[in-house]
Amino acid sequence: MQTMGLSRLVLVTPLRFPDADADAMAAGADAILNAARVAASLDEALAGATLAIGFSARAREFAGTVLPVRAAMQEALRYAASGDVALVFGTEMSGLSNAELSRCQIVATIPAVSDFGSLNLAAAVQVAAYELRVAAHGDRVWTAPAFEPATQEEIELLFEQGERALIAIDFLRPAHPKRLLPRLRRLFSRARLEKEEVNILRGILARIEERVQNGWRK
Amino acid sequence: MQTMGLSRLVLVTPLRFPDADADAMAAGADAILNAARVAASLDEALAGATLAIGFSARAREFAGTVLPVRAAMQEALRYAASGDVALVFGTEMSGLSNAELSRCQIVATIPAVSDFGSLNLAAAVQVAAYELRVAAHGDRVWTAPAFEPATQEEIELLFEQGERALIAIDFLRPAHPKRLLPRLRRLFSRARLEKEEVNILRGILARIEERVQNGWRK
Repeated sequence: MQTMGLSRLVLVTPLRFPDADADAMAAGADAILNAARVAASLDEALAGATLAIGFSARAREFAGTVLPVRAAMQEALRYAASGDVALVFGTEMSGLSNAELSRCQIVATIPAVSDFGSLNLAAAVQVAAYELRVAAHGDRVWTAPAFEPATQEEIELLFEQGERALIAIDFLRPAHPKRLLPRLRRLFSRARLEKEEVNILRGILARIEERVQNGWRK
Repeated sequence: MQTMGLSRLVLVTPLRFPDADADAMAAGADAILNAARVAASLDEALAGATLAIGFSARAREFAGTVLPVRAAMQEALRYAASGDVALVFGTEMSGLSNAELSRCQIVATIPAVSDFGSLNLAAAVQVAAYELRVAAHGDRVWTAPAFEPATQEEIELLFEQGERALIAIDFLRPAHPKRLLPRLRRLFSRARLEKEEVNILRGILARIEERVQNGWRK
């Protein structure tokens, strides 16, 4: 929850709370656990919510709107603009009962293989929290440090020098060029060269041309 | 892994393997653990792979292509059509080293809050496996049992009967209808009525009309 930016946890009739094992496992996110609210019933927990989304791995006869978790979290975000939205999870052993699911306007389900379909509670919460985060903030991520990209002109100069060098070492025969240059173009184009890389490659090529001119002597 | 349809686990120099604790926690997915391969180095583990995707929560100076996990798993699927793809995770304590990440063509990262950004290993694997599943199979889910939807004609008959009933109980005054009927239309249109629900509602309305005609006597 904390990693994904969620903070409000409500526990409905927990067997034990507070609990030393839970504290130990919270690993730095104990603020959420310490601030958790305990409710005497699901109805009490949901009293202020304008939308409740229940999670279930199994089809239920009286399920209303059933959505994949991705679409359900987008809907959660839409409603969160005007009120509290509750994500409702059942127990590790048996999930939500039909009576509990009937309190939810949307049933969310997480895609899984059909013959081994039930996630652990923590895993289901993780996927839901992740989808909510992506729905809210997109999935832009830190980018690699910005090395300066090479310009088209720099790259063309590299290709020209490369062609000269390949001819010089007798690897490319101008009369029968085959597909060599287009293949190399494709490779370096895909790599999206940076300025410094162009300089390194041109340095290597210059060294080759120099060695050829000197008859490969030391 | 098993819930999301993955089966091949490779462990690089594990501290203990096999391990009784791991067996106990596998909870029905012990087939994956039993078939896990142990490799003496990351290079050995990756030898047959045509694409390696490393997971990291932090920016790295020499990271190559950095993608959010969703885009990275789509790329994984594309490469899986022609070879083995490896998803590479570091240790719980410190993640992947720079040397390990340099073996990976893509760095995948999972969106998270910036000041508490690191997921547990199991949580990160869960999100990756989930995104891979959605990339491969879409996120269609079981649908609610198919109750037969009502036809437009049935719904119009319901609205006509409803209007009569509302007039009969003096709630709707035809001279000053206000926005009552459009609001009710909007509600029931949103609910996408089923045949049986229309029948139930018409039964209720018929009962109201009957009681009005009888002067509300018992």
